[in-house]
Amino acid sequence: MQIAILSFFHYFSLMFKKRENVFEIEEGKFLSPKFDDNGLIPVITSDYKTGEILMHGYMNGEALKKTIETKEAYYWSRSRNTIWHKGKTSGFTQKVKELRVDDDQDSLWLIVDIGNGASCHVGYKSCFYRSVPLGKIDNSEVIKIKFEEKDKKFNPEKVYKGQPNPTKV
Amino acid sequence: MQIAILSFFHYFSLMFKKRENVFEIEEGKFLSPKFDDNGLIPVITSDYKTGEILMHGYMNGEALKKTIETKEAYYWSRSRNTIWHKGKTSGFTQKVKELRVDDDQDSLWLIVDIGNGASCHVGYKSCFYRSVPLGKIDNSEVIKIKFEEKDKKFNPEKVYKGQPNPTKV
Repeated sequence: MQIAILSFFHYFSLMFKKRENVFEIEEGKFLSPKFDDNGLIPVITSDYKTGEILMHGYMNGEALKKTIETKEAYYWSRSRNTIWHKGKTSGFTQKVKELRVDDDQDSLWLIVDIGNGASCHVGYKSCFYRSVPLGKIDNSEVIKIKFEEKDKKFNPEKVYKGQPNPTKV
Repeated sequence: MQIAILSFFHYFSLMFKKRENVFEIEEGKFLSPKFDDNGLIPVITSDYKTGEILMHGYMNGEALKKTIETKEAYYWSRSRNTIWHKGKTSGFTQKVKELRVDDDQDSLWLIVDIGNGASCHVGYKSCFYRSVPLGKIDNSEVIKIKFEEKDKKFNPEKVYKGQPNPTKV
């Protein structure tokens, strides 16, 4: 285990600057991503043509490296506990047009081209296909949400035949 | 502690549907957010005029309730460990135009109006003011990042005078 940890730090210490002071993290010119206790960093993915958010995911160091180098999005699947080349099964890969990092470098924003494809394993274009109504909450009932996308872009039962659903209760 | 936990569930069980099966979570019409072990859910915030991502934050149940009811964004500050009415200090509140929830209901997307204001405590409009270059990584050096926003919208030293910086190493 110790060897694995040392290898991890050695491997990524060449790409990522060590986080040492706030000014360098916020105003510096070097990539110093903050991975959480599970070694992950959250990633926002938006469509470069429409600007809509397609999904919210996570990367580990290896997924980030692969994304930068191949210009296709790789994530860490928390439900399957493995690195995940987005679109490998469905064919809807994400061509990365731009990658941004935020002020304290603890989240990433990917701007991607998915052509006329989809991003959501349920079959919709965006994972964010439902909206929550705003305004006074009636405390006697559960909040209802509304479908903003009506039609699926593909049939997940065909595309992911025999694979377990990543959504967990 | 037991009383506090019971109160929490009682309080939010009226607003949020209990997560019981995957079909209801993904295709149902009720809000069933999944809060993590710290009681938080990640939130993506974008500018409704330009579509750019302004920030990545977190909400607890109370912040989500306040956001829905007041139509202004509330978050949970992990660095200050408190609920946080965004813009209370700077004046740059976020008027919520739309709130979306994703397929497995473990992340939220807020579309907000910040007028001609800014979102980032460092002074830039978006927290994602730097980009990461794509392509082959030179394994002998740290990855350099590039400023995409050049000018700050406000001077954080004036606006947040005497307050600790939320960025942590």
